[in-house]
Amino acid sequence: MIASRLAELICEVRFEALPVAAIEMAKLSILDTIGVTLAGCKSEAVNITEIAVDARASIGDALVFGRGYRTAPANAALLNGIASHALDFDDCNNTMGGHPSVPIVPGLWALAEQQGADGRAFLTAYAVGVETETAIGAAVNFHHYEKGWHPTSTLGTFGGAAACAHLLKLNQTQTANALAIAASMAAGIKANFGTMTKPFHVGQCARNGLLAARLAEGGMTASPEVFEHKQGFFEVFNGAGTYSVKKLFDKWASPFDLVEPGIAFKQYPCCASTHPAIDALLKIMQVENLKAPDITKIRSWTHPRRFRHTNRPNPRSGLDAKFSVQYCLARAAIHGAVLLEHFEDSAIHDEEVRSLMGKIQSQETETPFGTTTEHFFANAEVVSAKGKTFSAFVPYPDGRNRRHPLPEGKLDSKFNDCVSQELVPDAAQRLLSMLQSLDEIDNINMLSSIIDDGRRHEKSEMLLHN
Amino acid sequence: MIASRLAELICEVRFEALPVAAIEMAKLSILDTIGVTLAGCKSEAVNITEIAVDARASIGDALVFGRGYRTAPANAALLNGIASHALDFDDCNNTMGGHPSVPIVPGLWALAEQQGADGRAFLTAYAVGVETETAIGAAVNFHHYEKGWHPTSTLGTFGGAAACAHLLKLNQTQTANALAIAASMAAGIKANFGTMTKPFHVGQCARNGLLAARLAEGGMTASPEVFEHKQGFFEVFNGAGTYSVKKLFDKWASPFDLVEPGIAFKQYPCCASTHPAIDALLKIMQVENLKAPDITKIRSWTHPRRFRHTNRPNPRSGLDAKFSVQYCLARAAIHGAVLLEHFEDSAIHDEEVRSLMGKIQSQETETPFGTTTEHFFANAEVVSAKGKTFSAFVPYPDGRNRRHPLPEGKLDSKFNDCVSQELVPDAAQRLLSMLQSLDEIDNINMLSSIIDDGRRHEKSEMLLHN
Repeated sequence: MIASRLAELICEVRFEALPVAAIEMAKLSILDTIGVTLAGCKSEAVNITEIAVDARASIGDALVFGRGYRTAPANAALLNGIASHALDFDDCNNTMGGHPSVPIVPGLWALAEQQGADGRAFLTAYAVGVETETAIGAAVNFHHYEKGWHPTSTLGTFGGAAACAHLLKLNQTQTANALAIAASMAAGIKANFGTMTKPFHVGQCARNGLLAARLAEGGMTASPEVFEHKQGFFEVFNGAGTYSVKKLFDKWASPFDLVEPGIAFKQYPCCASTHPAIDALLKIMQVENLKAPDITKIRSWTHPRRFRHTNRPNPRSGLDAKFSVQYCLARAAIHGAVLLEHFEDSAIHDEEVRSLMGKIQSQETETPFGTTTEHFFANAEVVSAKGKTFSAFVPYPDGRNRRHPLPEGKLDSKFNDCVSQELVPDAAQRLLSMLQSLDEIDNINMLSSIIDDGRRHEKSEMLLHN
Repeated sequence: MIASRLAELICEVRFEALPVAAIEMAKLSILDTIGVTLAGCKSEAVNITEIAVDARASIGDALVFGRGYRTAPANAALLNGIASHALDFDDCNNTMGGHPSVPIVPGLWALAEQQGADGRAFLTAYAVGVETETAIGAAVNFHHYEKGWHPTSTLGTFGGAAACAHLLKLNQTQTANALAIAASMAAGIKANFGTMTKPFHVGQCARNGLLAARLAEGGMTASPEVFEHKQGFFEVFNGAGTYSVKKLFDKWASPFDLVEPGIAFKQYPCCASTHPAIDALLKIMQVENLKAPDITKIRSWTHPRRFRHTNRPNPRSGLDAKFSVQYCLARAAIHGAVLLEHFEDSAIHDEEVRSLMGKIQSQETETPFGTTTEHFFANAEVVSAKGKTFSAFVPYPDGRNRRHPLPEGKLDSKFNDCVSQELVPDAAQRLLSMLQSLDEIDNINMLSSIIDDGRRHEKSEMLLHN
């Protein structure tokens, strides 16, 4: 039975046996996830959900990042999960067809606080979570993705459950139950992309993964045949002929997805499918020393899988603009980068940007859909005011995988940008340093204390409340 | 846009315009739901979930039935939802292909407590919820059901969201958002039937329906195209060619599902698909005055849609036995009824029962699958020790719809049986009487107080804690 075999593999994972490259990649991913969570912790979706679940009325020790209180672990997983994806600035993974860390880290963090877990246990559980969701991803993608499921949310539920099960040291039967319970919690459809419900998906799956593990720990039963059953996960979510159980087990830890391809990091806070075109455009502008006013026309070509949800020539909100390749290209041309502030609702009507967008033509390549996983390339072409045409091809955007990393220092500077609104500089520096050596941390609560005590506005808020 | 049109219909519903038959049926259903919730409130699935979500650590005014504390509304919806379906004794609906009340009542109750809502507002919101989930059911069934979704859970999420949105008096846009958020919360697959995860589905959807409404109230955004989008609810959950939007709107309130066919009530605490065969067997035994020892052989035939998940000749647990037509027939033959105590795990190995099960042959009819909604019939045949063969046909089990009601007084006596372990007799009587005239109740909290204060074991437990 699949759940049981997968549970056995999960239970076997030990820190000591993890490849060094996996641990290094895990540390970077967790660091990046904590950064983007702090960047997103004041978002409206978090505000709204906090009230809907009465999170402040719950007595618990789980920190809600950047909000000055602690609550029940399930609530913290939900709220921090929403925060982590609110800006769509978190890391990506192509095997899963989504965002690998945000379904795992928020629930695992709340559990680790409760358990007083150390950095090694946390890193190991995180690696288990990523390997579980990507192995299931290998079995169901890209049909699963293209059908309209939000894999971050559906597959991430299993990742979160596996990670939490591992940290709780559940046995094989309990771990199989956690996976089977997770199958009945998996949810989230792409129709809701471009709205607050997308980051809500992530909070939901992070909380659900944690809950699945805790329910299994408590003795909740579920079907051992939950994956292969004719009314089980594969048949119901994918359908006959659109998945491969063999791929799941062939893929497991050979190598770990953290090692090959590795996790993709975003240097721009917008949909990853827009990044290669941005990189290609910036490459041309840098090489040819062009500025926005020098440009008459911009064209870009990306793979249909990347283009169709990013072809938004007239974005209607900041969230919508994150999925508009036209908007992102305009911002990149004007600023030489795409920044968080460009996705404020008030920013998207900027006249200079809208004017430049009128000169941008984005389209899909003629590449047929297929089994290839190489679809993060892009072409860009710029016609200068002097009538010259320049072009560039980017096979992978920077940060796309372990072989195409972000430029040196970029991840740390992104972290500092992300946390600068929330943490005083000293706390930011200490937190970064602890995350860089997470494998040497004795207790995750040491990090939570810094996140909580290092808040910029704590004092003024306290005065306000008194 | 479908969500918006559906929201408009939802917002239009007023108590004064509801058919009397709908109100009467709603009162019976709510009464029955409260009864089975009290019967199931000590179940293991509730115990486990209470700990997993730290429900006792949450400060709130929402009553957890039969457990002596109050918590946040979302937790109460979750726990009471699990309790309501823990025994699989709650009401049924064929349009939905599942259980109509349990996805709605627990979340709506918690919200009504918070709002101090009166009985009329509660009944109206309940009717809205049933009409919403059955209208969507008309659009997606029975493909949705047969594919492996648990419609109680998937469609029930919309029912709960619509009911809570109505009680909150959300406007059309907010109501559409609640439905769209619910589409990203819908979950639950049939592979987990026969395990504790099945009642967990119900708690999950009841909580999610409540949350969807509260999130929409708070301003959470979601896609207005969530149903018709190519990566929306219909395409992702059902798939092209397997649903009809027209049926959704044609069906709405013409008549209300509460009126035609009406809600089906269970007189046996086992899967509804086993009921017609039980009724047919008991009919023969009553007419022919047979007792179990007089029987050499029992045969039964039910529709394939009813038979396939109830063909369990060797149930392995009490929960499993609820889905075993062979087990249920043996119990009915021996006791003249099927009772809650028959589904204790210890009961299922009873030697007399197992011996009789060896004489039972159950099979599916040769009826082809089709568009008919008439599949709750059964044939039974009994061969007596004297070698005589008797047979009976039951077109509908008792209680199956408004035209085939339970025998007079049966629903009240079921209620009393259900609550007898939890409430002192006086409280049980007052609660029953208030539920019978729910439309005259000024505040739902009056009922919650009786449920809470009327607990049998309250004093001894208090002593225990001190």
